Amino acid sequence: MRKLEGIVEKILITPSGEKVSMEVDSGEITFEGLEGDCHSGLTLISHGRQPEYPKGTVISNLRQITILSAEELADIAADLQIPELDISWLSGNILVSGSPHLSLLPFGSRILFSGGVVLICSGENNPCSTPAKIVQSLYPEKTEISREFVRAAMHRRGIVAWVEHPGRINPGESFRIELPAAWDPIWVENEAS
Amino acid sequence: MRKLEGIVEKILITPSGEKVSMEVDSGEITFEGLEGDCHSGLTLISHGRQPEYPKGTVISNLRQITILSAEELADIAADLQIPELDISWLSGNILVSGSPHLSLLPFGSRILFSGGVVLICSGENNPCSTPAKIVQSLYPEKTEISREFVRAAMHRRGIVAWVEHPGRINPGESFRIELPAAWDPIWVENEAS
Repeated sequence: MRKLEGIVEKILITPSGEKVSMEVDSGEITFEGLEGDCHSGLTLISHGRQPEYPKGTVISNLRQITILSAEELADIAADLQIPELDISWLSGNILVSGSPHLSLLPFGSRILFSGGVVLICSGENNPCSTPAKIVQSLYPEKTEISREFVRAAMHRRGIVAWVEHPGRINPGESFRIELPAAWDPIWVENEAS
Repeated sequence: MRKLEGIVEKILITPSGEKVSMEVDSGEITFEGLEGDCHSGLTLISHGRQPEYPKGTVISNLRQITILSAEELADIAADLQIPELDISWLSGNILVSGSPHLSLLPFGSRILFSGGVVLICSGENNPCSTPAKIVQSLYPEKTEISREFVRAAMHRRGIVAWVEHPGRINPGESFRIELPAAWDPIWVENEAS
């Protein structure tokens, strides 16, 4: 039904001040994240995505790198009836194939790349409005596409992750995913109540 | 049945080279962990607890701070028929009360202390042999207690955590726990297969 492995298709960085990411030949990964990307850093300043904190709080950066699934992007494009949805419009860093349900990966899942880099998933990448605006600007004749994008992209925008072990990632290398220990039923019950 | 909140009872540090932790008045928490504790650091050198890596690999340190539940320690002591199990024998850093199932907390759970510190749970603290040896040395007449400890302590040894937001933790302050997003059924199914 779905695989816990896949292939790296592309590496991209978002330079500081840019809204879209740009493809690069390979990615140098340090404990701060992807070298040259504006989301790298050991810490970040909290904003709307961290409701636990007052805006502007310095916290540990678990959102260093964004990973998206080629299959999920193709599904969004199909729903929008456009030829493709480019990962760069979502400011993504790593495009992978072979993991069609990547966005649903639980917090704590390890992504082990064949070249040695290990990233840890800190959850789904929640919506921001920039990609919808980019898609709208590219398809001005489709007057509803911005709104449709938000619905079509739900739970398909990939995941954010941080670095457990640094190194270099190259397009073409494979990866496997290790899920963390499954939740004990005592907590699942809590979620349902 | 169980609460997602509690009270800090004690703070302890394990100085470098020591096997047991020592109580301190309060804990200064940086992004590296608990100041003065030998487990603090942004990175650690992998050992038997990280089967994903060859021993000696430098990886991100998600095991900075050990938190134990007073209720779970009391349950272990009751099973062993001894008056108490001291958190220091397990080299623990923070003793809490009010969370009787602390050891079962899922990876990614946030522990938000009333003084502002936030730690993230990286899972259950798996067994090591030191506490069993300490208990055995204290109760030489109970010749089986070392072996019994291993069984009694299973899933009651607390959790390891790392720092998302630094600050100071004082005994007596309260905390609440936020669970991460529940696993999507697609992954639970995978675990069962």
